[in-house]
Amino acid sequence: MSESLKSPFVANLENQWDKGNFVCVGLDPDLTTIPRSARKRFIFPTRRTIFNFNKEIIDATADLACAYKPNSAFYEGYGEQGMQALRKTVAYIKDKYPDVPVILDAKRGDVGNTNNGYVRSAFDDLGADAVTVNPYLGKEAMQPFLDRKDKGIIVLAKNSNEGSGEFQDLQVGEGEMPLYQVVARNVAESWNENGNCAVVVGATYPRELAQVREIVGDMPILIPGIGAQGGDLGAAVKMGKDSRGQGMLLSASRGIIYASDRPDFAIAARVKMARLVGEINNYRSVKV
Amino acid sequence: MSESLKSPFVANLENQWDKGNFVCVGLDPDLTTIPRSARKRFIFPTRRTIFNFNKEIIDATADLACAYKPNSAFYEGYGEQGMQALRKTVAYIKDKYPDVPVILDAKRGDVGNTNNGYVRSAFDDLGADAVTVNPYLGKEAMQPFLDRKDKGIIVLAKNSNEGSGEFQDLQVGEGEMPLYQVVARNVAESWNENGNCAVVVGATYPRELAQVREIVGDMPILIPGIGAQGGDLGAAVKMGKDSRGQGMLLSASRGIIYASDRPDFAIAARVKMARLVGEINNYRSVKV
Repeated sequence: MSESLKSPFVANLENQWDKGNFVCVGLDPDLTTIPRSARKRFIFPTRRTIFNFNKEIIDATADLACAYKPNSAFYEGYGEQGMQALRKTVAYIKDKYPDVPVILDAKRGDVGNTNNGYVRSAFDDLGADAVTVNPYLGKEAMQPFLDRKDKGIIVLAKNSNEGSGEFQDLQVGEGEMPLYQVVARNVAESWNENGNCAVVVGATYPRELAQVREIVGDMPILIPGIGAQGGDLGAAVKMGKDSRGQGMLLSASRGIIYASDRPDFAIAARVKMARLVGEINNYRSVKV
Repeated sequence: MSESLKSPFVANLENQWDKGNFVCVGLDPDLTTIPRSARKRFIFPTRRTIFNFNKEIIDATADLACAYKPNSAFYEGYGEQGMQALRKTVAYIKDKYPDVPVILDAKRGDVGNTNNGYVRSAFDDLGADAVTVNPYLGKEAMQPFLDRKDKGIIVLAKNSNEGSGEFQDLQVGEGEMPLYQVVARNVAESWNENGNCAVVVGATYPRELAQVREIVGDMPILIPGIGAQGGDLGAAVKMGKDSRGQGMLLSASRGIIYASDRPDFAIAARVKMARLVGEINNYRSVKV
């Protein structure tokens, strides 16, 4: 991949990393947890509460975030109003903070021509800058995503959940390499022709993160699991950073957006973010 | 799994199979292909065209179908109006033809608590009877789906697309079994505690279909790829049927719903269905 083949998504991320921003904020609204003071009542309460909450969090954290990552499941779970809140949230970020990429965390993947619908939905209808995809159907199926040179395609390799090893850790082929490493290798060697790919590795698996970093070189790695899921931040930075000390999107959701359940929740989110940014940049400077 | 642990989804399928119905109709609307005579203009044309088209196809085929399978990507690709058409389509089938299960083909999968959103969306908001899921994150992640005893969980094993072997055919572990067989085995031996699981194997891979049938016993297998994708119907039935000569959902989409581009499209779909039903039941009676 030549330098000229770098998607705007990756270029935007690099600008954020140069500013010391490595936290990707997971916008995962849960109506049972959103603080009372952020709630709207009566007319379209679900849509308005979710959007209002997201907006306050975004305004309080945009200068410290390397990206925002709404997870589609949370919005789909609230039906039409949830999807309208998602649409408004993406539009708000693109309008007010165009330098901060939006990743639609949707873990999509179908056979080739069917993926055109998901591509249109994520990129052209919602307007996201990147989408997460599931590699199980193979590159040939995912070509409609990979063809989008203007966007980012973030491929699951090793997920953060406890049971992700059921298939991802199976040793495959003659090289006796676990499946998640084969996925990372194929993405780096074959899927990334347009310089628009990244991979996902959970912070809960620092050893696996180090192995994927070795395989993918300086490709961006989305690293969930540093907050509520208990991944160790220092280990994630140490194992996840690329040759320039960058290349990471450290994703935090509940730990940031629900930092307080009181009217100060947005300020509390900002303080948590600032602290996290400080810790990450400290860990980055530690020589391995 | 005891007989008492059989989800209503599987029980409904068995009733359909007893009637000789094995065709699962893929409701995959494409506005560039929907016949001119089905189109609506002016007010919400996308939503109304898609729903009207689906409704005519459904009314013409409901007594011959074992299930309907709208693929979410096609609807998501048309934004809010597409999703409204999907919602109306599922509601229409559930209201008018409650004995014909609706499978939301969405290939979903995320970490555990996040899947609650997808579960709520597919089952409680849209009202589908079953959903397709991607196994890559493992059983522990998919538990919110598997816990739904009242629904069907259809797990991708071997997909119909040409490049599905990139990961699915890799030999894994000590037994030197391809990944898709390990998925099928784990679903049969561990994921199916509530008798609500099925697997997906493409008709384009008859040998693999036979191997999965051996692994999963009488579990239902969703078999896409018999139409436009070129899978051989006779081989699919021969390799896909269970010990009772049943257990198959042979999925056809374009070949049925776009059987004609003229005002007779619904009748044409019915004729194509009837012929397919006849062929399948002929093949079923052929002794292997």
